[in-house]
Amino acid sequence: MSGATLSNANVSVALLHHPVYDKNRQVVSTAVTNLDIHDIARSARTFGLLSYYIVTPVPGQQELAGRIVRHWQEGWGATYNPKRKAALELIKIAATLNDALEDMQERFGRPVRLVTTGARLHPRSVTFSDLQHLITERDQPYLLLFGTGWGLVEEVFEKADLVLEPIQGAGDYNHLSVRSAAAIIMDRLFGAR
Amino acid sequence: MSGATLSNANVSVALLHHPVYDKNRQVVSTAVTNLDIHDIARSARTFGLLSYYIVTPVPGQQELAGRIVRHWQEGWGATYNPKRKAALELIKIAATLNDALEDMQERFGRPVRLVTTGARLHPRSVTFSDLQHLITERDQPYLLLFGTGWGLVEEVFEKADLVLEPIQGAGDYNHLSVRSAAAIIMDRLFGAR
Repeated sequence: MSGATLSNANVSVALLHHPVYDKNRQVVSTAVTNLDIHDIARSARTFGLLSYYIVTPVPGQQELAGRIVRHWQEGWGATYNPKRKAALELIKIAATLNDALEDMQERFGRPVRLVTTGARLHPRSVTFSDLQHLITERDQPYLLLFGTGWGLVEEVFEKADLVLEPIQGAGDYNHLSVRSAAAIIMDRLFGAR
Repeated sequence: MSGATLSNANVSVALLHHPVYDKNRQVVSTAVTNLDIHDIARSARTFGLLSYYIVTPVPGQQELAGRIVRHWQEGWGATYNPKRKAALELIKIAATLNDALEDMQERFGRPVRLVTTGARLHPRSVTFSDLQHLITERDQPYLLLFGTGWGLVEEVFEKADLVLEPIQGAGDYNHLSVRSAAAIIMDRLFGAR
C-alpha cells in the first residue's frame, strides 16, 4: 500500500472556532480543545488528507493550539508517541477561513472549492456520493469545513461552493460531536470498504 | 420517522477501561474521560442503539462517571442541553464486562453475542457487511466492545463470538481515537445512506 496515504492529498479539513453560532444563535468564537486537535488530526491522517487547519482569530488560542502541536512534534510527546507526531504534522493554524483558503490555494495554484458540513439539511445539499465522485479529480483542491459550537454561521454556507448533506442515523436525533461527525464524514468520503 | 430510533435496539456498545493494554502491552485500567462518555453516548443515540456500558472496576472511576451522567440527567446540564440528556440516558455503568453482558442478557432472556473491535486484522475477523447482516436479526442481542488505551486484551478477543475487521483508511496509518473509531463503526453498521 505504499504511496496510498497520498491518495486524498487534494483535500484538507478545517475546524472553525469562528464564526460559529452558540446555543442562542449568537455569533461567537469558541475555545480550542485538546481533543478536537488530536482526534481530527488522527482521522485526517488515517484518511490520507493533506492538511488540517485550526481556525481561530484569538491570538491566545492560536498560541495554545501551537503549544499542543509542538509538544507532540518536538517535546517529550514526540518520542512517547510517534504516531501522534505523524498525525499532528498535518496541522496548520490560521486566523481566518480566508487565510486557510489562501494557504491551500497557493499550494495548488488554483481556487480551492469550499465544502461546508452541518447537522441540518440545506436547500443546496449534495450527497456524500456526489462529493465523493467530485473529489476524485485529484488536481482540484477541496477544503472541508467543520464548525464548533452550534455550527457554522449562515454566511459561511453562502460562501461555500458545496454544502454536504447531514449524517443520517437511525432516527431524528442528530447531535454528534464535531470530532465524531468529522470522523464519519471522512470515512464516508475516503474510507476503504 | 416515528419509531425509527428503536430500530437498532438489539445492539449495545461498551467501552472497556479494563482489561486493556498500555503502550508496553501491560494490562491496565485506564481512566474514565468526560469526552468518551459524551461522544460515544451521542453516537449511540444517533444510531438508535439500546445502551452504552462504561466498564471500569475502579470504584472511584465508576463514581466519577456516575457524577458526569447525573449532571446532564438531573443537574443544571439537563435544562441547559436536553439533547445531551437524551444521549446520556443510554449510559449504564458496569464493573466488569461480564456484568454488562449479564445485564443485557437479563433484558433479552437469551445469550448476548459479543463482538470485539480493534485496529489490527485478526485471524477471525468478519467484515462490516457480514456483521451488518447478522444484526438485522432483531431478537438476537449484540454487544459491541471498544477498548481504551492500546486496545482490548487478547483474552477478550478469545471470549468474543465475533471479531469485527479494522477500519481501513487511505494507507497503513490507523490510529484513530476510540471516540472516532466508535463513531465510524456505528455509522458503517447503522448509518442511513
